[in-house]
Amino acid sequence: MDFSEILQRRTIRFFEQRPVPESAFRQLIDAARRASCGANTQQLRYQVIRDPELVAAIFPFTAYAARVKPGRDPIPGKTAPPAFIAVLATPPDRKTLHADAGAAIQSIEFAAWNLGIGCCWIGAFQEPEVRRVLALPDDRLLLYLVAVGYPAEQPVMEDIPENGNVAYYLDEARVLHVPKFTVDAITTWR
Amino acid sequence: MDFSEILQRRTIRFFEQRPVPESAFRQLIDAARRASCGANTQQLRYQVIRDPELVAAIFPFTAYAARVKPGRDPIPGKTAPPAFIAVLATPPDRKTLHADAGAAIQSIEFAAWNLGIGCCWIGAFQEPEVRRVLALPDDRLLLYLVAVGYPAEQPVMEDIPENGNVAYYLDEARVLHVPKFTVDAITTWR
Repeated sequence: MDFSEILQRRTIRFFEQRPVPESAFRQLIDAARRASCGANTQQLRYQVIRDPELVAAIFPFTAYAARVKPGRDPIPGKTAPPAFIAVLATPPDRKTLHADAGAAIQSIEFAAWNLGIGCCWIGAFQEPEVRRVLALPDDRLLLYLVAVGYPAEQPVMEDIPENGNVAYYLDEARVLHVPKFTVDAITTWR
Repeated sequence: MDFSEILQRRTIRFFEQRPVPESAFRQLIDAARRASCGANTQQLRYQVIRDPELVAAIFPFTAYAARVKPGRDPIPGKTAPPAFIAVLATPPDRKTLHADAGAAIQSIEFAAWNLGIGCCWIGAFQEPEVRRVLALPDDRLLLYLVAVGYPAEQPVMEDIPENGNVAYYLDEARVLHVPKFTVDAITTWR
């Protein structure tokens, strides 16, 4: 897929109820491992969670698009994600490690879109419960979750000026609109 | 450019001494604004620094590839970056803001590669000095710098297993080699 098309990617929160093959996940993790990484320390690790029971056990501890609740949560068996990637790391936890994770997850999202797959990067999850479900050892950090599956929605991006409202919203057809600052709104030229 | 080619991107630290046009920078910031962003808060802002005097004033306060010093620093007038993007933000500073910055910078790097342009994401810079050069107000965070220009080197990525050494190194021709863990080394399947 041409990069101009990849850039049209949007976060997906409603998914088709069919599995994503292992070969696709291998491409996503390949994109993650190639991402920029401070001093090339490569502290990030990944768990690809495809087992339906494990996915179902994690789902209740994840949250989606807080601004448009209630009534817009994915529903198990109908629109919930068929898989997660848990983004883990070796200690120490620091801001630059989260920058590394952001770069890796953005790469995963692009690589997924390239295969017709959507992602939702989840920072809002109940960490102790997810750690328990995954039986993570104490010395492994759990930074983020990424929901992964074939898209069952088409969110729309729209431009906003410098003082625009960043709040995403549902239109009358319950399509999600995501306002983004224009280039001019966020750039100073020196 | 096809995404498979974009994925071959590597960090560039030596640059041709010719300017990158404003139109290219607009594409880079467009990629940044489309990146994933926690709760869509969009705290990130950008300064595109192309003025040669300002670039020269910032350069001494930036550091490159600490592991292969000395003798591998970019040289002003020969290999130094012709431009920087300063990645700024509105407060508050938090780990998830750095994750947002990582996603945006990874998007910038991909968009640059798509135009034949290389980047070096710089976390190692003398912040007070760069803030002074840019005359940044106190309420603006300075998170990272990104050096931007046409590549004058071709670093090589190589695969390493689970217990491999992540230290990048120069070969006899002074080409930079960047070891990256394989997919199998960093992935657990559940």
